[in-house]
Amino acid sequence: MQTYANIPIRTVGAIRFSYAGKPAEEIRVPLATLETPLWHSVNRGARLSRMIESGIVTTLIKECMTRSILFDTKNAATAYKIQQQIEVNLDELKSITQKTSDHTKLIDIFCEIVGRQFFLRLSFTTGDAAGHNMATAAAQEIQNHLLQKHKELSYLSISANICVDKKNSAINSILGRGKHVAAEIFIPQNLCELVLKTTPEKIVELNNKKNLLGSILAGSICSANAHYANMLLAFYLATGQDAANIVEGSQGITSAELINGELYFSVNLPNIIIGTIGTGKNLPYAQNNLKLLGCQNDDAKKLASIAAATVLCGELSLLAAQSNPGELMRAHKRLERKR
Amino acid sequence: MQTYANIPIRTVGAIRFSYAGKPAEEIRVPLATLETPLWHSVNRGARLSRMIESGIVTTLIKECMTRSILFDTKNAATAYKIQQQIEVNLDELKSITQKTSDHTKLIDIFCEIVGRQFFLRLSFTTGDAAGHNMATAAAQEIQNHLLQKHKELSYLSISANICVDKKNSAINSILGRGKHVAAEIFIPQNLCELVLKTTPEKIVELNNKKNLLGSILAGSICSANAHYANMLLAFYLATGQDAANIVEGSQGITSAELINGELYFSVNLPNIIIGTIGTGKNLPYAQNNLKLLGCQNDDAKKLASIAAATVLCGELSLLAAQSNPGELMRAHKRLERKR
Amino acid sequence: MQTYANIPIRTVGAIRFSYAGKPAEEIRVPLATLETPLWHSVNRGARLSRMIESGIVTTLIKECMTRSILFDTKNAATAYKIQQQIEVNLDELKSITQKTSDHTKLIDIFCEIVGRQFFLRLSFTTGDAAGHNMATAAAQEIQNHLLQKHKELSYLSISANICVDKKNSAINSILGRGKHVAAEIFIPQNLCELVLKTTPEKIVELNNKKNLLGSILAGSICSANAHYANMLLAFYLATGQDAANIVEGSQGITSAELINGELYFSVNLPNIIIGTIGTGKNLPYAQNNLKLLGCQNDDAKKLASIAAATVLCGELSLLAAQSNPGELMRAHKRLERKR
Amino acid sequence: MQTYANIPIRTVGAIRFSYAGKPAEEIRVPLATLETPLWHSVNRGARLSRMIESGIVTTLIKECMTRSILFDTKNAATAYKIQQQIEVNLDELKSITQKTSDHTKLIDIFCEIVGRQFFLRLSFTTGDAAGHNMATAAAQEIQNHLLQKHKELSYLSISANICVDKKNSAINSILGRGKHVAAEIFIPQNLCELVLKTTPEKIVELNNKKNLLGSILAGSICSANAHYANMLLAFYLATGQDAANIVEGSQGITSAELINGELYFSVNLPNIIIGTIGTGKNLPYAQNNLKLLGCQNDDAKKLASIAAATVLCGELSLLAAQSNPGELMRAHKRLERKR
Repeated sequence: MQTYANIPIRTVGAIRFSYAGKPAEEIRVPLATLETPLWHSVNRGARLSRMIESGIVTTLIKECMTRSILFDTKNAATAYKIQQQIEVNLDELKSITQKTSDHTKLIDIFCEIVGRQFFLRLSFTTGDAAGHNMATAAAQEIQNHLLQKHKELSYLSISANICVDKKNSAINSILGRGKHVAAEIFIPQNLCELVLKTTPEKIVELNNKKNLLGSILAGSICSANAHYANMLLAFYLATGQDAANIVEGSQGITSAELINGELYFSVNLPNIIIGTIGTGKNLPYAQNNLKLLGCQNDDAKKLASIAAATVLCGELSLLAAQSNPGELMRAHKRLERKR
Repeated sequence: MQTYANIPIRTVGAIRFSYAGKPAEEIRVPLATLETPLWHSVNRGARLSRMIESGIVTTLIKECMTRSILFDTKNAATAYKIQQQIEVNLDELKSITQKTSDHTKLIDIFCEIVGRQFFLRLSFTTGDAAGHNMATAAAQEIQNHLLQKHKELSYLSISANICVDKKNSAINSILGRGKHVAAEIFIPQNLCELVLKTTPEKIVELNNKKNLLGSILAGSICSANAHYANMLLAFYLATGQDAANIVEGSQGITSAELINGELYFSVNLPNIIIGTIGTGKNLPYAQNNLKLLGCQNDDAKKLASIAAATVLCGELSLLAAQSNPGELMRAHKRLERKR
Repeated sequence: MQTYANIPIRTVGAIRFSYAGKPAEEIRVPLATLETPLWHSVNRGARLSRMIESGIVTTLIKECMTRSILFDTKNAATAYKIQQQIEVNLDELKSITQKTSDHTKLIDIFCEIVGRQFFLRLSFTTGDAAGHNMATAAAQEIQNHLLQKHKELSYLSISANICVDKKNSAINSILGRGKHVAAEIFIPQNLCELVLKTTPEKIVELNNKKNLLGSILAGSICSANAHYANMLLAFYLATGQDAANIVEGSQGITSAELINGELYFSVNLPNIIIGTIGTGKNLPYAQNNLKLLGCQNDDAKKLASIAAATVLCGELSLLAAQSNPGELMRAHKRLERKR
Repeated sequence: MQTYANIPIRTVGAIRFSYAGKPAEEIRVPLATLETPLWHSVNRGARLSRMIESGIVTTLIKECMTRSILFDTKNAATAYKIQQQIEVNLDELKSITQKTSDHTKLIDIFCEIVGRQFFLRLSFTTGDAAGHNMATAAAQEIQNHLLQKHKELSYLSISANICVDKKNSAINSILGRGKHVAAEIFIPQNLCELVLKTTPEKIVELNNKKNLLGSILAGSICSANAHYANMLLAFYLATGQDAANIVEGSQGITSAELINGELYFSVNLPNIIIGTIGTGKNLPYAQNNLKLLGCQNDDAKKLASIAAATVLCGELSLLAAQSNPGELMRAHKRLERKR
C-alpha cells in the first residue's frame, strides 16, 4: 500500500503583486508546511500588500538551468587549448543541445581548469520545466561529443559540482541557476505601524545588523536574509517542485531602506528553481495548486514571481516580529496552541 | 476542507548499520520523495551495507541546538566589558535556561562584537526534540535577563543570523548546530564491482576531483558532497522534521580513500537537525515511520545516526553511477518510465 | 653584495588614540608603501582624530597564535575516542607547551574529524612575539607526544590548513588568530564636513551599500571593508612583521552608524598578527620604528592597537573620498604628480 | 631624510620554466623577504625543475584588471531596464574606455542588482601595467557617462567591492582579476626522493588531506594551497608591485596526482596582479630585478608566468617538508641560526 507524507496545505493571501510590467493582480497562494506560524506570517505580509496600490513588484532578471561536466586531460596547457576550441565552436554545442529537446537551449558556457581537470558548466533555458533532467540529457550529449572530438579528453563525471545542484555555493549566485527574481515594495509609515506593529526605521536597522552584519559574521556565502528557506519549502512542496532546491534557493539578499519616510523593502533571489511541468507537477494536489496560481502547464516565470512575492511577505513579517522584544515567541505560542 | 501535499513514501533497505558502539542491526528506512530514482539509489547502497558484516558504522561527535541574540550598546569597549561579565557568570544563564524547560540545557556560548553590536550565540541540548522552540524560549529569557542586568544593552533581535537557522554558513560547520554524525564503511573491491559496477579507484578519484576540487571551485563553504540534500529531505519529510533544515544539513564532506585495496567511504554531517518529539512528530505518518525506525518518542541520537547511514547509501550510489559514462541518465530514464 | 627592496617610509599623524582604557595619547606612525596616496589618506583620518578629545578608542578583544596538526587514524570512531581523551587531558598538552618556551602557553584546542583524518587546531599566547615559530615548535612537541601516546594515530602533517596561516578562511574570523582589535570613533557632523568633505549620512550609506552589500555579492568570507590590506601592509613592512599575514589581517568588518547626528565609525580586525620581538624586529629600520611607536621589544598589544587605529584612519578617509564623485581619481592624480 | 624599509633580496634558482608554448629556459628569480627559509625552500624546487627537461610549464588562461562602480536607482525594475540598455550598447562603453588610454580596453562587464542598487563590474586589459589606476580612470569616465545618460541613476561609489581589490572573494576566482596562470610539472619518483626527500604518494596524500580537506574545513573560499602568499609577497616586493594584492593572489588551488608512477604537481593562480610598468617599477631595485627577469618595461605576461613558476617551487618544497615528521622545524632552526 502506498503511503504518503501528508504535509498540510493552507491557502494564504491574497498577495497583491505584479510581474513582467503588467498591472497588479491579487492571487491566493497555497503553502504546505508543518510550521503553522508560517501561514500567519505570510498572511500578514499579504494583507499589507493589498493595502498598497502597486503591491509587490517582481522583476525577472535572468533564468537558466545548469549542469557541469568534468574531464581529465594531459595537463593544463592541453585543457586550455581545448577550451579555446570549444569557445569558438559554441554553435556546435548549441545544435547538439537542440537535438535533445525542442525546449532546451544552450545559452552560455563557463570553463574552469585546475591541474589536469577541465570543468565545463553549461547554462540552458528549459521552457516551463525546472529542467534538471533536460539539462542532464543535453550535458550528456555534449560530453559524448567532446569526448569523441577531443581525444585528449577522458570522462570523469556527468556532474562536476560547479552546477551547483542542492549545495551552497558562490557560483550559483554569481553566474545564476534557476530564475533570478527581485520582489520589492514601498510601504508608507502608517501602514508599517498598523499592520506590522513596527516602524520603517526599526526594519532597516534590523536588516542591516541582523541580515547583513550577522550573515557576514556567520561566514554565510552570497546570502543575507532571515528565512527564505521556510517560504520556498512550503511553496515548492505545494506545487510539486523538487524541494531540495531550497538549498540554493535560500541564498539571497534582503534589502531595506528608508526613502522619504517610506520603507523600501525587497528580496532578491538569484536561484529559484521551479517549473510548471515535469516530475511531480502532474500529482493531483500539484495540479490543483498550479491551477489556483494560474500557472497550470505553463508560465513558469509567473510562478517564480509569485514565489518571490511570497518570500517577501514572510521575510517582512518575521523581521517585523523580531524587531519587537518578545513578539516572536508570543506568536509561536499562540499559534501552536490553536492547532 | 484540509488539503495536503501528499509526498509518496517508500521504505528502502534494510540498511545495516551500528551506532553508539552497539552491534550492527538492520533497519528499513522510509523516504518521502517525488524523485523516484532516489529510492533505487539508496537501496543499492543499502544492499551493499548488508553484504558487509560491520555495515555502516556511525559516530555521534557532537550535538546542540543554537539560537543567537542581538543587542546594541554604546560602543565596542562596553560590549567587551559586558562579554567578560557574561563569560564569568555563565552559571547564571544556565540556571535561567533550566527554568524554561527540564530538557533544555545551556552548554556553551559564543560572543561576537562588531561596531556597537553584541552578538551572543547560545548552544543548548534539548533532549529528543530538534529544539527550535526550546532554544528560542530559553534565548528569550536569557535576553530579558541580560537587558535587565546590563543597562547599557538595548534590544535588537531575538535572532542574530549567527544561529544559523536554514541558511548556509561556516559557523554551523565549525561550532556545530544539530547533531554532528560521521557514517563510514569499508568496502572490499569485489563487492564494489559487483554491486556498484565500479572500482574503489574510480570512486576515490571522483570524490577528489568532483566533490573536493569541484566544490572549492564553486565557492561552496565548508562543504563537499554530491547530494546530501536529497536524502535528508526525503528522510525529514517522512519523519515529520522541519525539512527546511536541509539547508544546513546539506553542508558536509564526503571522504573516500583506497586502503589496502578496499574502498573506505564516509559521509560527515555536522548539522543534522532532527527530533523524535515536537512539531510534526505526532502526525500519523510520522508516528508510523518513527515507530518503524525504532525511534518513537525517544532516541533522537539513533534517528540522526540512521539519517547519516541513509545519506551514505545514497551518496555512494550516485558517485558510483557518475563514475560510469551514461549510467546516470540511463537510470533516470528507466526509473521514471516505470512510474 | 646584499641588495634590498627599499620601500619608502613616511611618518604620518599624529593619530590620537587610546588603548586598554588608558587616556588618549598622540602618536606618529611610520608607513612603508609604494602607494603615495596612502600617506595622505591616513593623514587625513589622523588629523580628524586629533580634533576629537577621546580620539580613536581601541579595544583588544582576544589574542592567540594558532597552528593545526593533522593525523590519520583507523576511522572516525577511533578519532573521536582519541579526541575525547585529549580534551580531558588538556593539562598534559599545556605542560608540554610550557617546556618549549617560557612565553608559549596553550590556551585552547579545537578538533575536527573528517573521514579517517583528525585535525587538531592549537591556540597559544606567545608574549610579545607574533609567535609563528613558537606555535610551530609547541605544535611539534604536542604532535610527537600524541603520536607516542595514541598508537592508532599516524603522522600526516605539522600544518593542517585550519591554522590558517596567510590564507583566507572563516575559521580565523570565528575562532581567532592574532590579535582581535576594535577601533572606534564618534565624529561630529561639522568635523566630518570640514575634514572629510562629506556627511555622516553619506558615509553610513556607502558603508552599507559598498562594504556590506558589495562584499556579500562578491562572495567575500567574514569580511566587509574597503582596504584594510593597504594600511596593514604599510604598517607591517615598517615594523618588521611578516607582511604576508595581511591575507588574514585584511579580513574584517567596517561599521558606520548615525547616532544623534554624529558619525559612529569603527573597524573590527580579528586577525592582526604582530609582534615587537622575533624575526625582522631587529633590523635597524624596524627598531627605529618600533621605538618611535613606543613598542621597542615589548607591548605587542599596544602595537596591534596602533595598527587598528591606523587602519581606521585610512579606511575612513577612503570611504569619504569615494562618497564624492570624482574625488578619488583627482586625489590620485594630484598626489602621484607630486612625487 | 627619506627612510626605507629595506627588505633583503636574494636571487634564487635558476628555475627552469616555459611559457606561451616556447622552449624551456632557465631564469634566476629575485625574492625580497624577511623569512630566510623561503629562499631555501624555493631553491629546492628550482633545483628540481632544472633536472627535468621540460621544467615547469606555465599557461596563461586569462587576464584582466577590474573595477566595479555603484549606483542607486528607483527600484530593481528600473535597474534591470538600464542593465539591458547597457548590455546592448557595450560598444559605447568600449569607446569611452579607449579615450582614457591607448592601452586600456574594456573586454567584459558583469551586472548585479540588489534592492535599488546597481553594481557594474568592468573588466579591462591594461597592456603591461597591473592597471589599477588605468581601470579606475576608465571606470570613472564610464560612470560619468552612465550618470548623464540614465537620469534615474545616482552616484554611490567609484568602487563597489565586487572589483575585488585586496580582499578575499569568490568573484575574483570565478570571473578573474589579474592574470590567471597555471604552472605544472611532472616529477619522476627518483627525483622526488632525491631532491624532495619524499615520495609522490606522500605529496598527493598531503595535498588531498591538508590543502583540499583542510581548506574546506577552514571555511576558505575558492582556495586550497599551503603558502602561495609567501612566494607572491617576496616576488611582488622585489619587482615593485603593489604587494597588498597578495590578498587575492593567495587564492588558488594546488593539484597533485600520481600518474604512471610520476608526481604531477601544479599550482593554479587565478589572480596574479602584476605589471612591468607603472607605480613602483621605476625604482632602481625594481628596474634591476625586472631586467634580471627579462621583463624590463614589457612582457607582463612572462613576469606573471615566472611568478607562478616561483610559487610552484615554494609550494612543492614546503609540502615535501611537511610530509616528513620534524623536517619543517629542523629546517627553520638551521636556517635561522645561519643568518
